[in-house]
Amino acid sequence: MKLLRYGAPGAEKPGLLHTDGTIRDLSGLIDDLSGANLAPERLKAVADADADALPIVPGEPRLGPVVGQTGKFICIGLNYADHAAESGLEVPPEPVIFMKASSAICGPNDPIIIPRGSEKTDWEVELAVIIGKPAKYVSEAEAMDYVAGYAVTNDVSERAFQIERAGQWTKGKSCDNFGQLGPWLVTPDEVGDPQNLSMWLTVNGEKMQDGSTSTMVYGVAHLVHYLSQFMTLHPGDVISTGTPPGVGLGMKPPQYLKAGDVVELGIEGLGTQRQDVIAD
Amino acid sequence: MKLLRYGAPGAEKPGLLHTDGTIRDLSGLIDDLSGANLAPERLKAVADADADALPIVPGEPRLGPVVGQTGKFICIGLNYADHAAESGLEVPPEPVIFMKASSAICGPNDPIIIPRGSEKTDWEVELAVIIGKPAKYVSEAEAMDYVAGYAVTNDVSERAFQIERAGQWTKGKSCDNFGQLGPWLVTPDEVGDPQNLSMWLTVNGEKMQDGSTSTMVYGVAHLVHYLSQFMTLHPGDVISTGTPPGVGLGMKPPQYLKAGDVVELGIEGLGTQRQDVIAD
Repeated sequence: MKLLRYGAPGAEKPGLLHTDGTIRDLSGLIDDLSGANLAPERLKAVADADADALPIVPGEPRLGPVVGQTGKFICIGLNYADHAAESGLEVPPEPVIFMKASSAICGPNDPIIIPRGSEKTDWEVELAVIIGKPAKYVSEAEAMDYVAGYAVTNDVSERAFQIERAGQWTKGKSCDNFGQLGPWLVTPDEVGDPQNLSMWLTVNGEKMQDGSTSTMVYGVAHLVHYLSQFMTLHPGDVISTGTPPGVGLGMKPPQYLKAGDVVELGIEGLGTQRQDVIAD
Repeated sequence: MKLLRYGAPGAEKPGLLHTDGTIRDLSGLIDDLSGANLAPERLKAVADADADALPIVPGEPRLGPVVGQTGKFICIGLNYADHAAESGLEVPPEPVIFMKASSAICGPNDPIIIPRGSEKTDWEVELAVIIGKPAKYVSEAEAMDYVAGYAVTNDVSERAFQIERAGQWTKGKSCDNFGQLGPWLVTPDEVGDPQNLSMWLTVNGEKMQDGSTSTMVYGVAHLVHYLSQFMTLHPGDVISTGTPPGVGLGMKPPQYLKAGDVVELGIEGLGTQRQDVIAD
């Protein structure tokens, strides 16, 4: 099942991508794709509804982020073996975690906004995991029961803000529109093995990232288990699981985004995103 | 004006600490202390109401965190000159920022929960700034217009998780009940100069921290301005502005919390907190 949110920013409605290609309105079943509605049993009720009978959403509405009311936007650093090798860095002995501001989250095709003063805005295609019910001290074996689904995310990053401006990574990761999330929340039954999905990203049509979740160091089940040892994961929380090789920072010389560029990215089975790059 | 939230976790109602010492119910005026209700003009409307006519809340209800629906819980590292000197560290050339999970936020007298596996749970009394309206690219001169008020916070920190467990500080800062916030949101008119408030913290009655916001390196106006250059600050966002000397990590030998301890802390004009330390 492919779920989505459509409409104006902050006023999105829940929807379903029907197998016939139309978007169907889910407002009659759930008020939003957020909170308790993300529990696997609630999503099953949506799946059991007669999709043909749901109202068709006309036109081509803007797509919003696939979940609302995200409390935590947690990212995993240096989580691809080939990316670590490319960077000349060791794979960390346990997951490196950091946070992006939840206010950075936006729709999959919303623009990348280059913040004022930025010269090093970069891209990162990542597999996002959306939490479906509260998870605390869960084992790796039961971790997948807490996953509502998966989505594509672009972990947009300002490298000077992140690395050269004193201290932690947060300030280079949290700018507005630095977290495109979507187009769909795809439920686990439809994704299959989340550790075997191809993923890619282009800038102006040129392939920059071309990887697979198969080279992820710490997989989804381990990450949900691991994070839940430190804090309760809540429905709507998003875990962005790291990026494969090919980011602008790693190029020789480094290459960054400028206004007018077009970024496209996608993950096998999870859909694609397209973003215009604009200056703030 | 001293505003508060009272009631069971997740179901708090807005209240006012009347000058007669009673808590008055604000439910008839605002649905919660969150979002658009925090705008200075909305708080002015609350201030203009006849407090004597508001219903008295009976008994001694639990106090919740002073704001609801916090999107970002942003912290400033190493922001006290005397704390930096004590640590043998340089004052950073610009603010160091990191994030705590907003799910760590709890009421001012809710227990400190020592996470499983923790041996280094520590305390940090801090001045919290609560944002009242969206702030982006604001100047230092206008920054104070975006502040709804101030509160006491305890930036509880697990030092091994923070420093010894690979990467960024987040995992030692984000555990459940690692952010007591309150007892009150005190509006700026009542606080006076936020850069001249005494602050203290005791463990089992012994004074551990005894400082003043006067030794803060980057003051409130600068921090609101500075953070707004990187991301939009939204109503209900909390900025915790750093801690003065006297944390457990800085002692020789270091001293950490254990189940059964009692932590009390306060800031001049902003009230006090009292927390039992319990094991998870």
